[in-house]
Amino acid sequence: MSPEDAVPFLDYASVLVFALTGALVASRAQLDLVGFIFFATLTGIGGGTLRDLLLGQDPVFWVGRPGLLVLTSLAAVLVFFTAHLFESRYSLILWLDALALAVAVPAGVDVAIGAGAGPIVTVAMGIITGTFGGMARDTVANELPLILKQGELYVTATFGGAVVAVVLIGIGCPGVWALIACGVTVFALRAGSMLLG
Amino acid sequence: MSPEDAVPFLDYASVLVFALTGALVASRAQLDLVGFIFFATLTGIGGGTLRDLLLGQDPVFWVGRPGLLVLTSLAAVLVFFTAHLFESRYSLILWLDALALAVAVPAGVDVAIGAGAGPIVTVAMGIITGTFGGMARDTVANELPLILKQGELYVTATFGGAVVAVVLIGIGCPGVWALIACGVTVFALRAGSMLLG
Amino acid sequence: MSPEDAVPFLDYASVLVFALTGALVASRAQLDLVGFIFFATLTGIGGGTLRDLLLGQDPVFWVGRPGLLVLTSLAAVLVFFTAHLFESRYSLILWLDALALAVAVPAGVDVAIGAGAGPIVTVAMGIITGTFGGMARDTVANELPLILKQGELYVTATFGGAVVAVVLIGIGCPGVWALIACGVTVFALRAGSMLLG
Repeated sequence: MSPEDAVPFLDYASVLVFALTGALVASRAQLDLVGFIFFATLTGIGGGTLRDLLLGQDPVFWVGRPGLLVLTSLAAVLVFFTAHLFESRYSLILWLDALALAVAVPAGVDVAIGAGAGPIVTVAMGIITGTFGGMARDTVANELPLILKQGELYVTATFGGAVVAVVLIGIGCPGVWALIACGVTVFALRAGSMLLG
Repeated sequence: MSPEDAVPFLDYASVLVFALTGALVASRAQLDLVGFIFFATLTGIGGGTLRDLLLGQDPVFWVGRPGLLVLTSLAAVLVFFTAHLFESRYSLILWLDALALAVAVPAGVDVAIGAGAGPIVTVAMGIITGTFGGMARDTVANELPLILKQGELYVTATFGGAVVAVVLIGIGCPGVWALIACGVTVFALRAGSMLLG
Repeated sequence: MSPEDAVPFLDYASVLVFALTGALVASRAQLDLVGFIFFATLTGIGGGTLRDLLLGQDPVFWVGRPGLLVLTSLAAVLVFFTAHLFESRYSLILWLDALALAVAVPAGVDVAIGAGAGPIVTVAMGIITGTFGGMARDTVANELPLILKQGELYVTATFGGAVVAVVLIGIGCPGVWALIACGVTVFALRAGSMLLG
């Protein structure tokens, strides 16, 4: 399995988990069902969309795979009918966001390598794919972006994971293992800062 | 008249009306004339610009039709010298914004169909074209985005209108009628929620 | 020296100075080193990135010149270790921002002319290249965007400089002098409004 083969799976997984966090933010803002779908979709596809625009991928990834928009809408509907069951939606948002980061950063790294980007731009695309959806979610919802919270190792986690992937691929490690190491690094740094910070 | 022929007219009309709302927001923020032009232009072309970027239309629509920037500047000048005549600028913003939505959503649907998009992406482009200009206006001006206000049926109105257009075109209705039905649906839902909400 | 030859130098200079302002905002927000790098990079490349996306330049300028990302990171590291030496970081941000504006507007004008844009779109690209990085910096950092402050002649300065460049080039002035006049105009208007406003 080449790293490029992993892209569709990674994209679907990160879109889904980010969409859940977007729908939970819509729930905190007490929006209606369409508001849930809007925030789930904005958060789910935001990072990958900016990555594709910057790399000159025309059109962006979800225009060719509209099933992704169905996925974010279904995630919104799911959260709409179940969010009241959770005691702490904010804590749930934080953990799902950490999980989504851990999938989105390798997805961004993978697409950048497939587009022929060098190591520096690849790291930048990993960070952008990971952080932009959540940043758009928090900015539009008027919440303080997670990247601005002190002691959260938010951008640091995405940076660390992307560097691990680029270094491993640079020394000849098979792409799929580099991407897994990338995701594990992101999650370990982010979860560690949440538990210890 | 094919639906594609309607694009320039719809784009001009929605750019003009959104530009007026942007200039009125600049007036509430007590900016100078260039600030009026900035907000009128950001609001007027924001939605269609994001739509074109996502669909891979290079360059975006107003780069090839710079008259649109003249139009937003004239709208800004007009509002700059007349805004003091209106008793409630906020109410005027809301109604002009509803009118602009009712023109921008069919414009977005039309461009997406012309670019060969399927029904799901077409609905998404209608929503994006309708909502993004006003969202940028409110975010930059530090006002609460209209899409976040409860009971406003804001995104819902654009969603409803875009679905009506896609369904009508899908069952063979002539494009121009589908676009008119789309605009009427958007305005009816939005105006209804403003009057009854 | 044709105006196009000036682009790489102008881009590097405006990216560097904007990056310093971004890092200083990160310093005010008491972020960690990676937060500094994030804000320095967002501010440094934001305006030119939007300009390239709108003009359909694929990929955007820094994807092909990753040294620019090294430059913004170095600027962030520099500010991280020296920001405490400055008595008024806010005043320093304002003056560096004025300097960056005076370099970024001619850079935007230059790229637009190189891409074959007409005078109106060229002026728009000068304004966008100048203002968008700082606007993204302030919006993400939850500070009031400079463009919204009254009596600041912020957008006006970029507008004035871009018009000067377009008029001078239109009457046959050599490109490099037109760009210099553009930068001087931007700085004079902005610095004047800061000293006298």
